[in-house]
Amino acid sequence: MPTTLKDIARATGLSTTTVSLVLNGKPHRISKEKCRLIKETAKKMDYHPNRLAVGLIKHETKTVGLILPDITNVFFSEVAKGLEDVLQEHGYHLLLCNSNDRHERELSAIRMMNNQMVDGLIIVMSSETVGEKEKKTFAALKSMKRPVVLIDCFNESGGFSTISIDNFKASYIAVEYLVSLGHRRIACICGPLGLKTNDDRLRGYTAALADSGIPFEKALIYQGDFRYQSGYDAIPVLLPKKPTAVLCLNDMMAYGAMNALTNQGIRVPEDVSVMGFDDIFFSQITSVPLTVIRLPAYDMGKKAGHVLLSALSVHAESQQIVFEPTIRVRKSTKAINNGNGLLGG
Amino acid sequence: MPTTLKDIARATGLSTTTVSLVLNGKPHRISKEKCRLIKETAKKMDYHPNRLAVGLIKHETKTVGLILPDITNVFFSEVAKGLEDVLQEHGYHLLLCNSNDRHERELSAIRMMNNQMVDGLIIVMSSETVGEKEKKTFAALKSMKRPVVLIDCFNESGGFSTISIDNFKASYIAVEYLVSLGHRRIACICGPLGLKTNDDRLRGYTAALADSGIPFEKALIYQGDFRYQSGYDAIPVLLPKKPTAVLCLNDMMAYGAMNALTNQGIRVPEDVSVMGFDDIFFSQITSVPLTVIRLPAYDMGKKAGHVLLSALSVHAESQQIVFEPTIRVRKSTKAINNGNGLLGG
Repeated sequence: MPTTLKDIARATGLSTTTVSLVLNGKPHRISKEKCRLIKETAKKMDYHPNRLAVGLIKHETKTVGLILPDITNVFFSEVAKGLEDVLQEHGYHLLLCNSNDRHERELSAIRMMNNQMVDGLIIVMSSETVGEKEKKTFAALKSMKRPVVLIDCFNESGGFSTISIDNFKASYIAVEYLVSLGHRRIACICGPLGLKTNDDRLRGYTAALADSGIPFEKALIYQGDFRYQSGYDAIPVLLPKKPTAVLCLNDMMAYGAMNALTNQGIRVPEDVSVMGFDDIFFSQITSVPLTVIRLPAYDMGKKAGHVLLSALSVHAESQQIVFEPTIRVRKSTKAINNGNGLLGG
Repeated sequence: MPTTLKDIARATGLSTTTVSLVLNGKPHRISKEKCRLIKETAKKMDYHPNRLAVGLIKHETKTVGLILPDITNVFFSEVAKGLEDVLQEHGYHLLLCNSNDRHERELSAIRMMNNQMVDGLIIVMSSETVGEKEKKTFAALKSMKRPVVLIDCFNESGGFSTISIDNFKASYIAVEYLVSLGHRRIACICGPLGLKTNDDRLRGYTAALADSGIPFEKALIYQGDFRYQSGYDAIPVLLPKKPTAVLCLNDMMAYGAMNALTNQGIRVPEDVSVMGFDDIFFSQITSVPLTVIRLPAYDMGKKAGHVLLSALSVHAESQQIVFEPTIRVRKSTKAINNGNGLLGG
């Protein structure tokens, strides 16, 4: 709960009227000493004037903030849709803000959401927010003194409720599936190293290889940035290593990889299998419908909404909710030929 | 030294109070002639209000609101991205809200944006907002007493600045192109009738047919709702009318149409040409890369940001900005065969 005029009155031993006159800048004859005391206490207690008359009484604005790294990424807009559908049912509005995947923008977005007096905040942190930066973001979130739910990209829970996917298992089952098709040279286009979401997926990849008795080969890993272009750029680097399958740790990079392969005259899945990760809407209508690990973006958004709403209505303990990934087989993967395809080793 | 209100008062021979009332958009009973003189002089003398002083008086929040009908529609998220890039450069935050293409939600979003004290608002109205509903939305926007910019879907400007596309021309050039390929049976999957954006596109379609000497056939029109599924559903209705080309009035419906055709074993573009409208990112990576009318979503968002920011810094007249559509030929369209394809009449 945010600090109120009453809290400051109690802390200073002065009347709420006195505190209100001073903090709202109304004319008064209150001594300079008392004014200073009130203002200092307000600062110490992190008091923010409430913009709304309703808010002054109920301490709520019926708005929930959502901070996303990239609103043009369909995975995130599906999260937003799920969240919004739940909030709407309960008479809440969603305020959305884009951090553009930058830590500084994220901090400034949190400040803004605080100024806008949102009742609670849901955030997918930027991929830059690791280490010291993650601590800074957690500190900013804590200073809001309102319920916060983290989705997907975080290294620790920071004491907040979290909604995530079992990322280790997700890529484990992806590799397991590719191995079951006879693939042994499985390249991986991953996201930024150091980001837990990505590192967990990589651990799943290496663990599944190990459990299948396939030696790990560092040259088969290409570090991308979850964007289309990095998937495209990965292909000329990976092809000389003769992979028969490419696992991409999100769908956008899989689209890039698929187009780069096609442009080189390499057929998917006849020559190389490609597998995605997310299952956003467009993966069913790409040139070759994409086999993917499905992450339930919409449902994750919905769940985040439910967790936040329950924290708003009762003082709930923070929850750690982990969704199970599933596999959706479409047409971009294929059992390996005896000749191991065009590029097989 | 920057020009001050006093300088303008001196130059026009009017009082500083009079000049201030006009340039700050306060209620007044000053004659139209004097208003014009003051505004023209302010423009000539390159007057810009002192930002800090304005902020103190106007209680600026450095936030701009954006209301969209559907955040999962990539066209709109590209508009949002363009807008946000401009706002960020100028130290503004974007607050985004989804109306879910419903008029009631739109009104409630406007109220919320008003409560959140946004400095200005940019809105793409819902497709339900026509007639009396449009009047209601305009009334709500006017009551905010802050700059408003309308993008894309509106029937009248309502006195606000607008950013739109020449929709008539857009479908005119689409049909012209299809006719140049030899097509005469050109079906059209449109959006909700009564919505000006859609009606203008339909007028462009019929005008281009007329100018090519092709009789209009009502049975070749299917009314969709701009969503994927309605494009899919249109195909079984349109196929008995033997079109050789299908013009879809947005990309999402084109994806639906293309998949419905493929699922019936009808080849695009060998048997039927399909054309889209928007050119969102995914149109280059669909099963057959889509020939489209390109609408510059990102640039439209950017322009909306510039228009709004200029309205925030000076009392600017409302502007009507119309973007030119262009055509982008990819692989979903093809010159008609002598035999007029599988389904040709």
